[in-house]
This record gives sequence, structure tokens and C-alpha cells, in this order.
Amino acid sequence: MNLTILGCHSATPRVSAHPTSQVLEISGHIFLIDCGEGTQVQLRRSKVKFSRIKHIFISHLHGDHFYGLIGLISTFRLLGREADLHVYGPKGIKEAIVLQLKLGKSWTDYDLFFHELESVNSEVIFEDDSVVVSTIPLDHRIYTNGFLFREKPGLRKLNFEAAVKHRIDKSYFNKLKQGADVENAEGKIIPNDRVTFPPDPPKSYAFCSDTAYYPEIVPLIENVTVLYHESTFLESHHHLCLTTKHSTAKEAGVIAKKAKAGTLILGHYSGRYRDLELFRSEAKEVFDSVELAEDGKQFKF
Amino acid sequence: MNLTILGCHSATPRVSAHPTSQVLEISGHIFLIDCGEGTQVQLRRSKVKFSRIKHIFISHLHGDHFYGLIGLISTFRLLGREADLHVYGPKGIKEAIVLQLKLGKSWTDYDLFFHELESVNSEVIFEDDSVVVSTIPLDHRIYTNGFLFREKPGLRKLNFEAAVKHRIDKSYFNKLKQGADVENAEGKIIPNDRVTFPPDPPKSYAFCSDTAYYPEIVPLIENVTVLYHESTFLESHHHLCLTTKHSTAKEAGVIAKKAKAGTLILGHYSGRYRDLELFRSEAKEVFDSVELAEDGKQFKF
Repeated sequence: MNLTILGCHSATPRVSAHPTSQVLEISGHIFLIDCGEGTQVQLRRSKVKFSRIKHIFISHLHGDHFYGLIGLISTFRLLGREADLHVYGPKGIKEAIVLQLKLGKSWTDYDLFFHELESVNSEVIFEDDSVVVSTIPLDHRIYTNGFLFREKPGLRKLNFEAAVKHRIDKSYFNKLKQGADVENAEGKIIPNDRVTFPPDPPKSYAFCSDTAYYPEIVPLIENVTVLYHESTFLESHHHLCLTTKHSTAKEAGVIAKKAKAGTLILGHYSGRYRDLELFRSEAKEVFDSVELAEDGKQFKF
Repeated sequence: MNLTILGCHSATPRVSAHPTSQVLEISGHIFLIDCGEGTQVQLRRSKVKFSRIKHIFISHLHGDHFYGLIGLISTFRLLGREADLHVYGPKGIKEAIVLQLKLGKSWTDYDLFFHELESVNSEVIFEDDSVVVSTIPLDHRIYTNGFLFREKPGLRKLNFEAAVKHRIDKSYFNKLKQGADVENAEGKIIPNDRVTFPPDPPKSYAFCSDTAYYPEIVPLIENVTVLYHESTFLESHHHLCLTTKHSTAKEAGVIAKKAKAGTLILGHYSGRYRDLELFRSEAKEVFDSVELAEDGKQFKF
């Protein structure tokens, strides 16, 4: 599971502060999460192959999470994209994109599917053999969802020596990986766990931005491997969280702790702070494993 | 008259190739012309004061000229703008901007005026004491206007020594600058041109992008001080001009020559060319004074 932060700053794009966008590589997928203005240039900087992006998840329709989407969709067309593109985001996203394409008479040659969200309850929005994506309803000034990406358990791992020792024919190895008990050369049933190891524990990633402190999300993200939680402010500006519906670094730490997350990544910093290490210190008061998002930074889990 | 090129490349934004946007400083105004994605960051790079921009002119609704506008409008709000903003652009521009603001519940606190254009004839769209702006209908795949910015003739310049010699009282100096004949200390009428110099000749700037070769614009831009004319292609790709409705550098040169422009600035280069000097050479075959636009470059006239 690889996470590339394309932008992690709030509000207005600046020369060295890009608005929210992330690339999550999980189970062979390249998922794009949020798409602030300038995302397509950040994708180029991080050398992400445009054609590998098939699914884009938009948390909410504030500009710093959304205004780069129309440009990216247009660029896909100009680059001769043929693959389908699926966009998941709040109701209204389709109208905004389609209107702009229409005004420019710039229809896409590829198939563009919109999956508009309006439920206030968590729902599964994408699922295949290897991964499942569900929404995390958040508490912001407008309708907003976080997203939970969960790997499905993989195949069991063959204990090759044990399988040979138990005289199991090679043709049964795939069945073993799938968890089945199989017959050996003497016709004896060998229990699966004697000749396989358990699969790697499935990993998961929760993206929670933008949101006020909202402990209602804890049951949805319990035991998540990595939690990205916005921390627009420090506690010294806690009063601003109430009016803007954002969180402090400490509140993000509390959510990570309650959810028993593996690691917390902070981001969506307000432009008023010069020293981002203050965010880490504050969250560390309540939660141990804290990382800071930075534009262009890669995390491997 | 100062022109700052914020971006001069066609199609998709890239790390070192920004889509069209320019700042024209003329007669005390700061006019923004076109607003591709990333324009607000380019404005910051060029240290243009956001609050001084009161008028934005959008040539057409293709993304590389327009997708940065919604972000700029939102940023103005976040920066606490109070001054009115006037946006001039093709019909539909208001709907696109207002829809996106509505979806984000992000109304501006300042007054935002849209001046939607749909005429196929040149029309005056802004005028005050010092400058007049009119449209230049162009020939592109969708409805597109260039813009002509013309200074009005300024005040005559006082010939101080001559005025003293002719014994004209100081209280008449403003009248002299306005071109009036005045009475001197002996009650004799002094013809204006004996005690003043003519004003600087008014300057003008024509922005013509995007467009196919379209000599119909020549009468509108005759004798323009500076002509910015798109040159997406070189003559070797002339066939692409026909399908995409763009121009070659040579065609831009022909227009400059026919219009008796002072200087031609080329831009809107296709990303396929490495050596932009080829554009200059090609235009110079037909027109002498050719400059190349570059992102971040400033021209003073």
C-alpha cells in the first residue's frame, strides 16, 4: 500500500502549498482522492501514469478538493485516453463537470461514469476481488464523505517444504492457497493449516478530510492501518474549528487513538502556521505514531 | 503599458508550461486576460497584487483559458476581497461559475458582475476616461473573442519655459494641458500649441487567441502598438490548423504585417515543439518585430 501526497494544504493554492489530492496504490489499483486545482501538474511531478487512474473519489465540493477535476478530465481526453473513468462524489458533481465540458464543446472520447453520493450513512461504493471502498460520512460545512479503502484477505501462503513432506501433488497448490484441505499421494486428507501460512493481514486506509472533530466515525475506521485525518488548526485556534468545521491536530490524535489506528497522518494545514512540527507534537500528546503529510511525500505501508 | 505573461502554452498544464493568462497594466488598470488552471499561483509568482485586478476578460470557454477562473474567484473571497469584480466572457460563463459556487455554498462577499458576450461583431465592453476595451471576434472551434485595449489620448504636456516667456499665469496650466488657448498677463490670447507639446501617442494592445488565420480582424487592430497573436503550430503542421482552428507563426506574422502592428508577440505554443525560436524565425519571414511569449516574462511598451 503506497500513498503519495500530491497536496495537503487548505484553502488557496500557493507556489509551494498545493490543495488536497492524494494517490493511493492498493491491491493493484491507483485511486485518486480529491483533486484541488493543480492536481494534474502534481501528478506529473510525482510521475503517476495518468492512464492508470480509473477511479477518482471526491470528498466534497469545496474548491480546494475539487477545482482540479475538470482540468484533469479534459487532459485525459487530450492525451487520447480510452479507459473508462469513474468519479465518486457528492450529488451535483456531474452537473458541474458536464456543464463545463458542454460549454467548451469538449466531450470526452472515453466513457465517464459519475457515482453521485447523497447518503448520510456509510455505504460501499466500490468493490472487486481485492479491495472494498466505503464512505465515511463526515461533519463539515457542506455534505462531505471520507473514504475507507480495505484490502480483502489475500491467499494463504504455501509452506512448500511442508507440502512436499506431506507428499501433496503440485496440482493442489492453488487449492491450498485458497484454504482448502487436500488429499495427498496416499489418499490421506491433509488439513490446510499444516501446509500453509496465513495470508498477510489486510491493510486499510481511511481518508478523513474535511471534518470537525466527529467521534461518530470511530466505529467505521476501527483498527485501520493508516488514518489520514485533517488538522487544519492547532489547539490555540480551536475556536476557529467551531465556525469552519475543521479539526485540530490534537483532535485528530484523539480520533486515531479511539479508533486504534496503526498510524496517523496529519494534513490540510491552514496557511497561518510556519512550523508544521507543531502539528505532530500536539497530536503526539494523545497518540504515538504520527506522520506529517507534505506535498510530494510518499508513504509505504 | 506593461504586459506580464503568466502562461502561454496550449492544451494541458505541465510543470513548466502554463496555460494562457496575461496581466495587462494600462492607464492605471490591471486587466487579467484569460485564466487557465493555475493562474492564481502564477499571479503569486509574478507578485501581482490580487486586489488590483478588477476586470477579467475571458476569450473563450476552453479549459486552458478558463478553468482557473473559479479558483481565483474563490480565492478572492478567502482573502477578504471587498472590491467589485467584473468578468467579461462568452455566454454560459456565469452559469458555470455560479453553479460551482453554489455547490460549495461559497458565495462571494464582494460584488461579482458578469458581462456575457454573444455578439459576432466587435463591441465596446469597457470604457472610462483613460482606456477603452473592445472585442475582436475570432475564428475558433467555439465562440471566441480577442480583446483590443486602447489608451485614450492623454493631456498635452506643458512647455514650462514657453508658458513663462508668454507670461501665462499658473492658474491656466491645467487648461493648457487640456488643449485650450488661454489669455496671458497682457490680455493676449496665446495659441495652445505655442506653449504645449502634444501628448504621448496613445498605445494599444490586441490579444488574439485562440484563432485560425482570420484576416477579417485586420481592420479592427490596424496600427496596434502590440499584437499578441496565437501561433499554436509551425507551417510544417499547417494541416492541423485547419481541423483545430489555430494559426501558424507565419500566419500570425502575416496578420501583424497586414495590420501594421508595432510589435508581434507569439504564444499558445503546442507542446510538440522543443525550440521556440523556430516560431520567431518563421514569423520573421514576413514581419520584422517579433517577440516570443514565455511564462513569467514581462514586456514594457
